[in-house]
Amino acid sequence: MIDHISKLTEKIYPTLIEWRRDFHKHAESGWAEFRTASIVASKLSSWGYDVRTGMDVIDTDARMGVPDKEFLEQQEKRALSQGADPEWLRHFSGGFTGVVAILDTGQPGPTIGFRVDMDALDIQESSSKDHLPAREGFASMNTNMMHACGHDAHTSIGLGVAYVLSQIKSRLKGRIKLIFQPAEEGVRGAKSMVEKGVVDDVDLFIATHIGLDADLGELICGNLGHLATTKFDVTYTGKSAHAGANPEDGKNALLAAAAAALNMHAISRHSEGQSRVNVGVLHAGSGRNIIPGQAHLKAETRGTTTEINQHMYQKAVKIVKAAASMYEIDASIDIVGGAESCEPSEELLGFIRQQADNITEIHSVKATTGSPGSEDATYMMSRVQEKGGLSAYIVFGTKLAAGHHNERFDFDEQVMSIAVKTLTLCACHADKA
Amino acid sequence: MIDHISKLTEKIYPTLIEWRRDFHKHAESGWAEFRTASIVASKLSSWGYDVRTGMDVIDTDARMGVPDKEFLEQQEKRALSQGADPEWLRHFSGGFTGVVAILDTGQPGPTIGFRVDMDALDIQESSSKDHLPAREGFASMNTNMMHACGHDAHTSIGLGVAYVLSQIKSRLKGRIKLIFQPAEEGVRGAKSMVEKGVVDDVDLFIATHIGLDADLGELICGNLGHLATTKFDVTYTGKSAHAGANPEDGKNALLAAAAAALNMHAISRHSEGQSRVNVGVLHAGSGRNIIPGQAHLKAETRGTTTEINQHMYQKAVKIVKAAASMYEIDASIDIVGGAESCEPSEELLGFIRQQADNITEIHSVKATTGSPGSEDATYMMSRVQEKGGLSAYIVFGTKLAAGHHNERFDFDEQVMSIAVKTLTLCACHADKA
Amino acid sequence: MIDHISKLTEKIYPTLIEWRRDFHKHAESGWAEFRTASIVASKLSSWGYDVRTGMDVIDTDARMGVPDKEFLEQQEKRALSQGADPEWLRHFSGGFTGVVAILDTGQPGPTIGFRVDMDALDIQESSSKDHLPAREGFASMNTNMMHACGHDAHTSIGLGVAYVLSQIKSRLKGRIKLIFQPAEEGVRGAKSMVEKGVVDDVDLFIATHIGLDADLGELICGNLGHLATTKFDVTYTGKSAHAGANPEDGKNALLAAAAAALNMHAISRHSEGQSRVNVGVLHAGSGRNIIPGQAHLKAETRGTTTEINQHMYQKAVKIVKAAASMYEIDASIDIVGGAESCEPSEELLGFIRQQADNITEIHSVKATTGSPGSEDATYMMSRVQEKGGLSAYIVFGTKLAAGHHNERFDFDEQVMSIAVKTLTLCACHADKA
Amino acid sequence: MIDHISKLTEKIYPTLIEWRRDFHKHAESGWAEFRTASIVASKLSSWGYDVRTGMDVIDTDARMGVPDKEFLEQQEKRALSQGADPEWLRHFSGGFTGVVAILDTGQPGPTIGFRVDMDALDIQESSSKDHLPAREGFASMNTNMMHACGHDAHTSIGLGVAYVLSQIKSRLKGRIKLIFQPAEEGVRGAKSMVEKGVVDDVDLFIATHIGLDADLGELICGNLGHLATTKFDVTYTGKSAHAGANPEDGKNALLAAAAAALNMHAISRHSEGQSRVNVGVLHAGSGRNIIPGQAHLKAETRGTTTEINQHMYQKAVKIVKAAASMYEIDASIDIVGGAESCEPSEELLGFIRQQADNITEIHSVKATTGSPGSEDATYMMSRVQEKGGLSAYIVFGTKLAAGHHNERFDFDEQVMSIAVKTLTLCACHADKA
Repeated sequence: MIDHISKLTEKIYPTLIEWRRDFHKHAESGWAEFRTASIVASKLSSWGYDVRTGMDVIDTDARMGVPDKEFLEQQEKRALSQGADPEWLRHFSGGFTGVVAILDTGQPGPTIGFRVDMDALDIQESSSKDHLPAREGFASMNTNMMHACGHDAHTSIGLGVAYVLSQIKSRLKGRIKLIFQPAEEGVRGAKSMVEKGVVDDVDLFIATHIGLDADLGELICGNLGHLATTKFDVTYTGKSAHAGANPEDGKNALLAAAAAALNMHAISRHSEGQSRVNVGVLHAGSGRNIIPGQAHLKAETRGTTTEINQHMYQKAVKIVKAAASMYEIDASIDIVGGAESCEPSEELLGFIRQQADNITEIHSVKATTGSPGSEDATYMMSRVQEKGGLSAYIVFGTKLAAGHHNERFDFDEQVMSIAVKTLTLCACHADKA
Repeated sequence: MIDHISKLTEKIYPTLIEWRRDFHKHAESGWAEFRTASIVASKLSSWGYDVRTGMDVIDTDARMGVPDKEFLEQQEKRALSQGADPEWLRHFSGGFTGVVAILDTGQPGPTIGFRVDMDALDIQESSSKDHLPAREGFASMNTNMMHACGHDAHTSIGLGVAYVLSQIKSRLKGRIKLIFQPAEEGVRGAKSMVEKGVVDDVDLFIATHIGLDADLGELICGNLGHLATTKFDVTYTGKSAHAGANPEDGKNALLAAAAAALNMHAISRHSEGQSRVNVGVLHAGSGRNIIPGQAHLKAETRGTTTEINQHMYQKAVKIVKAAASMYEIDASIDIVGGAESCEPSEELLGFIRQQADNITEIHSVKATTGSPGSEDATYMMSRVQEKGGLSAYIVFGTKLAAGHHNERFDFDEQVMSIAVKTLTLCACHADKA
Repeated sequence: MIDHISKLTEKIYPTLIEWRRDFHKHAESGWAEFRTASIVASKLSSWGYDVRTGMDVIDTDARMGVPDKEFLEQQEKRALSQGADPEWLRHFSGGFTGVVAILDTGQPGPTIGFRVDMDALDIQESSSKDHLPAREGFASMNTNMMHACGHDAHTSIGLGVAYVLSQIKSRLKGRIKLIFQPAEEGVRGAKSMVEKGVVDDVDLFIATHIGLDADLGELICGNLGHLATTKFDVTYTGKSAHAGANPEDGKNALLAAAAAALNMHAISRHSEGQSRVNVGVLHAGSGRNIIPGQAHLKAETRGTTTEINQHMYQKAVKIVKAAASMYEIDASIDIVGGAESCEPSEELLGFIRQQADNITEIHSVKATTGSPGSEDATYMMSRVQEKGGLSAYIVFGTKLAAGHHNERFDFDEQVMSIAVKTLTLCACHADKA
Repeated sequence: MIDHISKLTEKIYPTLIEWRRDFHKHAESGWAEFRTASIVASKLSSWGYDVRTGMDVIDTDARMGVPDKEFLEQQEKRALSQGADPEWLRHFSGGFTGVVAILDTGQPGPTIGFRVDMDALDIQESSSKDHLPAREGFASMNTNMMHACGHDAHTSIGLGVAYVLSQIKSRLKGRIKLIFQPAEEGVRGAKSMVEKGVVDDVDLFIATHIGLDADLGELICGNLGHLATTKFDVTYTGKSAHAGANPEDGKNALLAAAAAALNMHAISRHSEGQSRVNVGVLHAGSGRNIIPGQAHLKAETRGTTTEINQHMYQKAVKIVKAAASMYEIDASIDIVGGAESCEPSEELLGFIRQQADNITEIHSVKATTGSPGSEDATYMMSRVQEKGGLSAYIVFGTKLAAGHHNERFDFDEQVMSIAVKTLTLCACHADKA
């Protein structure tokens, strides 16, 4: 089987590269993956997958950090002008850029699901000739949007897996479910698909990432220690006044924001694990001689466990509101992203390691990575486990030109071939997991 | 008339000194002036004054900063053992240490009222031989209570005025009202007498002080710019927890107090006049390795006008409460003192200046003093003006050994003679004011 | 004389309006008054004034808040394209947009100086048809630059005074000095002209403003209580780090800025007068999940006296630096504006009031205005007084469509006529001051 | 062997109780264990141990948190009056209350060292009849000193081990070293003994504690996760001023302390492990109406590793100093305690577990405890390991009447018998470790 898979994969490897570079060139930020999603849907449909999209796979209210309507409309037009599939495009209108594709083998067997994220970052890509995408002409043409985290590779890998599986459908059992998720950056999108129930019938769930701190040929297959997190924005609305003439008439939103920031960082440590809090952005005030009537914060909390993160977030909210009350102003808080902590299923990790043994390009398997981040695939992992299934999150190493989220991020494209082979093999043997 | 008054005053001058030194030796802090008040009441009564005391002249609920019951009981016993008049003493039980004495001449004419404060400060008097009261053996025998602001002089002056007037009653018109007030320090007592109505029938009201920054022979007769003020205590009750083992279980009262203090000081300036805020004392926590569950603040606000002070106090209260809510703890606020701002009545100032012209020891009259403080006689002044009367606050200068509120405070006792003469003369000519 | 002046003024009144509307349409912000200054210089020169410009009247190092080179170059080009006088324009290159014009009568007599400010504000003018300049087609064509404080009127008045005086030169004595100052907004320009000595020989100095809270026909001629002020920017440079992965590697510039802002506002009140402090703008951080490595503050202090302002500013600087040291980051502080407090000369105020008596349109003279602001003409006023001269700051009332610094600010242009008459008359009688 | 040890231990069990109750009744706080140390030294000497004391076993400069001279002199007198051994007492003068006792068997073999701490806490013991020591008449007679952490048991166990070993000396090999340490509470004493070299020759080192969260019959023998810690006091000295009259003259120590406390708590989390910071006590100011000129903090930092604690402490120091500079005041910092983190030696833990198997009263062995605290035995453990030896820290469970550091703390005295047997057995078999 692995030989057949390998051959098929190597045959489409040039296409994988082509796809990836096309996605890279047309990088689209979260909830605006109009072009990407329409191309994904179109291809999957043409390969015989049962494709579901838009509001069928995304719960409206569970979406987080959705850009404003005007931006989305403009992005949809941009996508069309950049070659989006017009028929599929309208499914995603209003920022419902998720795609779920099902291959039902007709044979009894488990449902295996793969999470694929498609969004780019709000980063302006380097135009330096030292940067391969720039040199080769596939740097992002969209201002301030760049695939600097490898989701272009993820999308191509997802398509590759889908294609290869479609070619060997007769040898498979159970069902294959490919879940193409929007807005993973900022951990905004997964929850809306979970709430729509897209993983409720998944028995084996695998989310993947490329890169991080693993080299080409390394597989990280263990507990990555993802931190639970909540991302939130705060808007303080006070009252401006002239700082010389009548300062007593002002309600100072800047000082409220400063007090909130300081006291949020002073939230107690937690004895049961790591906790985090950050006010990453603070913008306040309109002019030097005006008591500031407006302030905006972008903040986040994290924790080793979902409970610790909740503890941190609830304390932070109390502080945000109390700081408003301290300065007699209004505060509004918007949750714009979130993720959970999640322990992967040990049995599934073992199964994946077994399959990886058959992939010659994988020469070593590591149990963990260095520094933990956050991921909203954890929502899917948790839901699958709650429903009695097994979950895992694995990383395919690759050589990086620069770190993730860097304007010169780039990677060795061979990782796509390794990932397609491994994931396809997992799907083939899903009934033995 | 002035000659007669002068003669009578000089005759009793040795007694004034004797009284003053006796009061000094038995200094009693606010609401515990049991011995002083009983002696004052006894003497005034013996001179034919209609004397009212205790709950008849003090409104229970309007008292501020009253010590606890245990302390008052202990002080009452102390007073008795130090020679309080037992019969009068019981009138003052429970901290109702006010005395109002009325001399009704039977002749038509205005009611002139004098405010006399009797309380000492919570200061341990110097025992240095450089300090005259210590050298002469009349330093306070009461621990941590000292007449370091001259209220011993005020009480003696009040008695002196009362005595001289009683001797010349037949030549007087209208009514004389002497108001001996408790707890001026901390601006705690005047309001309770005002609320009981003791100045409601006063046509001409004069409050006096000795010292400040005027020399012997100087009279300050103008607008002293008393700042309105509110004194308040804050108690924060959080929850202790071990700082190493389970810090997340604590509710940190110390940090709430710190946040409150910082943000209170950041209350905006006021364009219409001077404002003040001070957290003078902060005590928090029980041990180095315990998240502090308790914190206490002693604070105050002030303002050029009663309105500015109210503005400051209301902002401070909001901050105190918000800081509690920030740390999920409880806050209780007790108002323990207060005073208003008050413009003296120009006509009455003119009248007093006229009388002062006849006092040979007064060689100069100043309109104001350097640095403004707060005084609760302002409550009486305002009430008198509201009822259509005239109010003034004047200062009789004297040579000081050390500044007010210093452990070596002392003054030239001749000021008592000057004050008795001036105030008595004002009372004699009250019908011409 | 007044009749002659009146007639001449009324004759050029349509021209005053024309000039004003032209300046309004081509509003130029501080240090970029290239077009305005070149037209002013050209006209004054054509009327026989000895005109000095650029580096001859502006001290390079004493300039404050000068925009960057690129902006200035772009503005100079813009000015040229909008009709600046090319010959004079080059005198102002690099932001030296000051003009001093002298009319020497040849007769013995005092030197009388007038301060005229020419700069616009960084405000986008309203395009509403309710706004007269928009309706009449003379709203500012320069983005985010608007004469919303009346300096367009000031410039026209200055030209008007210059023209009328040039017509009656033979009747004058002494010398007339017209000082056209850049960058009064933000109190950035006056000091650089003072340091160059332009008021050192002025015997009588009058700075003027229109509007404020006075009506048409009212003259404010007294002490406006200008607050001394210092404007400053702070840049904090820390170190970014990932807020989830390695927060301990960050040096948090946002928290330093928050601590600085809070503690600056907590600087003690000053017993000798009004004090102010404001952090009007705070921008910090680059992304939600990044420990902020950068923060910027725009701040100011003020005081009733130059000493109080200095006290406030010095405390603020200590706090700014200590906050940097608290978070192990760097702080740089740039002073971008400043003004002094200044008592006007009582004799000169009297003289002006005398002249105003002869102006029929002036029906009332007020001593002061409501709420004090800051003005850098105070630097000139102080210097003149130090050199033995007399200084005054007066306000010609006018009807306002909206308050100063409002996007719909507009005024009754008749004020220009009143001002020209009054100031011209002052110049005529300068020898009698 | 174990039978012999058991018999000997049971025989002296009543004496263990007697000793323990005597120490309990005469509880002595850190560096004032004059009576305890003199009795310990006297007994050990009488049993044939080579006893070293005072400055021979304690490095003067490495002592932390030593009380002032006056207190120590008074305590030494108190000890004498309570039955201290006068001859040994003088060895400890000035707070050098450490005892090291060596039993050299003359046979080749390793040196095994036991750490025994002797100090009480600054707690007033309950006098309730529900509290056994009070009911039985052995509650502490020393005000505000109480054995509420079981160090009275530790001392008795240490003596018990010493006695039993002295009785079976002929069967032993190598050397026994008993280290009786002062001032473990506040982690103040161990370092001074380490710096004097008392553990430099120890091959096997065992520190013990009773209670914590283990029951009678349980042994905790693993990694207790002791947090490294630094304890420090801060004194801020500013300048007082009257809050109404001249607030600008004050240098506010209270606000500096508040700023320090808030910003210390805002020190970033550390990604490599747990960190802690606590300002447990803050006392500032002298009176409501006085700008506070003095403030005192009691604070501590902790960390999973010595490096994390150092990171926290260094950040805290920077903040403390910067807060002083912010308010233009002085700060002095005194380190008054400290401990390291330390991994126990796995081989030694295995050896101890082996011995425990032979103690019938020990029915279960746990690997760890719930919530980690700090211990200065870690200094000894680290030093022993640095010199090539092995270290362990074990806990003998017992039934507690109330938690550690509670005024009703008490325990089941049988734990002393279990501990003596186990430790003695370890010493007997030390050559097999």
